[in-house]
Amino acid sequence: MATLEDVLSTIDANQTAALDRLFSLIAIPSISAIPANFPDCARAADWLTEELRAIGFEAAREETAGRPMVVGSAKAKTRDAPHVLFYGHYDVQPVDPLDLWTTPPFEPRLADGPNGQRIYGRGAADDKGQLMTFLEACRAFRQNGGLPCNVSILFEGEEETGSPSLPAFLTKNAKTLKADLALVCDTGMWDVSTPAITTMLRGLVLEEVTIQAASRDLHSGIYGGAAINPIRVLARIIADLHDPDGAVALPGFYEGVEELPEEVAAQWRELDFDEAAFLGEVGLSTPAGENGRSALEMVWSRPTCDVNGIVGGYTGEGAKTVLPAKASAKVSFRLVGKQNPEKIAQAFRAFVRARLPADVKAEFIAHGASPAIALSTRGEAVRRAARALEAEWGKPAALIGSGGSIPVVGAFKRELGMDSLMVGFGLADDAMHSPNEKYERSSFHKGARSWARILAALAT
Amino acid sequence: MATLEDVLSTIDANQTAALDRLFSLIAIPSISAIPANFPDCARAADWLTEELRAIGFEAAREETAGRPMVVGSAKAKTRDAPHVLFYGHYDVQPVDPLDLWTTPPFEPRLADGPNGQRIYGRGAADDKGQLMTFLEACRAFRQNGGLPCNVSILFEGEEETGSPSLPAFLTKNAKTLKADLALVCDTGMWDVSTPAITTMLRGLVLEEVTIQAASRDLHSGIYGGAAINPIRVLARIIADLHDPDGAVALPGFYEGVEELPEEVAAQWRELDFDEAAFLGEVGLSTPAGENGRSALEMVWSRPTCDVNGIVGGYTGEGAKTVLPAKASAKVSFRLVGKQNPEKIAQAFRAFVRARLPADVKAEFIAHGASPAIALSTRGEAVRRAARALEAEWGKPAALIGSGGSIPVVGAFKRELGMDSLMVGFGLADDAMHSPNEKYERSSFHKGARSWARILAALAT
Repeated sequence: MATLEDVLSTIDANQTAALDRLFSLIAIPSISAIPANFPDCARAADWLTEELRAIGFEAAREETAGRPMVVGSAKAKTRDAPHVLFYGHYDVQPVDPLDLWTTPPFEPRLADGPNGQRIYGRGAADDKGQLMTFLEACRAFRQNGGLPCNVSILFEGEEETGSPSLPAFLTKNAKTLKADLALVCDTGMWDVSTPAITTMLRGLVLEEVTIQAASRDLHSGIYGGAAINPIRVLARIIADLHDPDGAVALPGFYEGVEELPEEVAAQWRELDFDEAAFLGEVGLSTPAGENGRSALEMVWSRPTCDVNGIVGGYTGEGAKTVLPAKASAKVSFRLVGKQNPEKIAQAFRAFVRARLPADVKAEFIAHGASPAIALSTRGEAVRRAARALEAEWGKPAALIGSGGSIPVVGAFKRELGMDSLMVGFGLADDAMHSPNEKYERSSFHKGARSWARILAALAT
Repeated sequence: MATLEDVLSTIDANQTAALDRLFSLIAIPSISAIPANFPDCARAADWLTEELRAIGFEAAREETAGRPMVVGSAKAKTRDAPHVLFYGHYDVQPVDPLDLWTTPPFEPRLADGPNGQRIYGRGAADDKGQLMTFLEACRAFRQNGGLPCNVSILFEGEEETGSPSLPAFLTKNAKTLKADLALVCDTGMWDVSTPAITTMLRGLVLEEVTIQAASRDLHSGIYGGAAINPIRVLARIIADLHDPDGAVALPGFYEGVEELPEEVAAQWRELDFDEAAFLGEVGLSTPAGENGRSALEMVWSRPTCDVNGIVGGYTGEGAKTVLPAKASAKVSFRLVGKQNPEKIAQAFRAFVRARLPADVKAEFIAHGASPAIALSTRGEAVRRAARALEAEWGKPAALIGSGGSIPVVGAFKRELGMDSLMVGFGLADDAMHSPNEKYERSSFHKGARSWARILAALAT
């Protein structure tokens, strides 16, 4: 009978083919935020469905009101094996500003980096490279007698746009999807040689606001001074969103936010986080945000408000003396603890409306709302996964928080009563959501080996 | 010998051909702010050069560091006639947002309006329709024995981008261009049936600022809270630019601003300006700007600050949790009285720099700076032009201010020691700089007749 070592050897022997497969997936520009790319999203779903079938899964593309889901399942080689549901997303972020990419975002390539080769391309790390680590582990088991666990698969195509179709899909397909444990591969390592299990995630509220003043764009010479400027109204609202000490000024915003438990704070202190390096890597030196908090605390355990985009008036070359009719901003809130996403979205809208002068209207679009997640660091699955990761990487796995939001983890708990184990191989410098996104080749290769070890550990 | 009545009859008889000519000019997309349209600017200059030659002018396209000038001249039919220099600009504003245009901006058309037919198209009013009123008047004189004045022509192609090449061009060509009086047709009527002479113009300072924080766009989940957001920095700066009472907060901004002379204030009160209609036409009801000032005062005689455009981060459809590296705004100041444009540009830059947190840089681009203009309302030229306008329109001409800026008027005074007579036939609802720009057909037709009367009046 094949051993785990045989499975790991198969992964090692198939690296080139595995890279080819990942490149094929990255080459599909499955940007879920852009309607023109919706057919590409469907193509990515079809590609994954075929891949699952090729490694012995029953698999199908399932339609939703938005982008399709891919659902698959395969039985373990033994009876009474545990049942895990693996989650990943095939959609990717938009690529702008395109001119900052060294090579085209959907033409994946290898290049040398300080820690070996890197895989460049949009989605290389978030989340195509990550989800393929799991598929490659499953493929290797398949070639060595079969899977140690019953494995279900859920690949989503709307993670980057707030997962609007996900909750209803989970409810409708609860019977198929409910497993003993969800495995979510959309998080990072502590550093390039230290694996990590993520146990805290921030929640996310995405709101878009458009401030409308005059019924049409005006000449600023003819109307300037007499007609209200919506950019000025919007700027005032954005400026007011933070107190002078960096705290978010929305009334009630900090309801449900608690100080970090001392146990977790102690673990984090042990990580010896290099704040100067974290900021220095992106050209910064001083933590912004709430006064008196460390950068790590701010990105893992404190709620924030950021403006992700703003636009109004003339933004082309040169000057145009227009007094625009409207201006808009995309505002997001990262949530922690028991902050209520719905309440915060409503508080934001009330905050905006309270600051509208005469003749000015505000319109809102909700792009998603999900609460924060905190998982027990003491469960059996975390213990087994930590041991498997240490065996692969030769270092204990760090138990970390993440500033990002993975709405599916909350949805799994809420809709299916299922806990999630969050293990991923991304790195802080992967440039997720930025130009020149990359994934370390070691993350891809040792990520697949890590999943093989974790699946084996969960089954024993 | 032909009389003024003969000239007016010729204008009346040639309306269709005159419209065809104007349509040909509007059809050339001579947008001076957009490099891709630079060849169109040159085409418009060539078209005007040919038109001038066709009506007996010596004319040439003259190159500058930017868009070309068109210079022409024609002798009067009598000796000792006065010498006037007519100024207009063939460049137009950008057309965005294009989706708000009912028909394509460079496909001019006639449509019915409440005051007769209207000419729709970018540049119909600003300034192609206006400058063609003068050429049609000259053409009619030419067909009736010749011009009553010596006429020089200067058509500029950079008015909408702050006239960067104009001062040097005037200095270099002072001998050719210096006349007894400049005629500038880039202003408006009081209303659709009341002609006007503009005697006050606001100045203009155009600044673009880019706020740069991190060295690349960041994931707001990973960095949000720890990394400074340049949109937030920019919003704070813009919010700070005005006091709570609506005054501009730039230190020293009101230096050189005086209250309106009682004589002018009295004239303006007599105009019985309908503030509710002025604002209501564009969907507004309440004057913004300085508390306690009327809308007319604010747009004609008070300085202002407006943001003409702002952009940063993700502005496409849907949401993207990016923490952008930079954000920028185009800010303009309208000046009055003796406000110093250079000092105000410097004060703005200092104001921005004083509000930059750690790690944040600001870069600036100057898009032009010109002072305010106030002309005597008692001169001989104003008196004669007012009489000519009253003869055409059957109502006394209003002596008005304008919130817009016409840098050439300051340049004529400064570089050539020449006064300007500002007469134009635009209307407040012409949507200059906006989608669906139009020019009343009556403005075009009676505008040409008005210039015929003014030229005759100046010569007697």
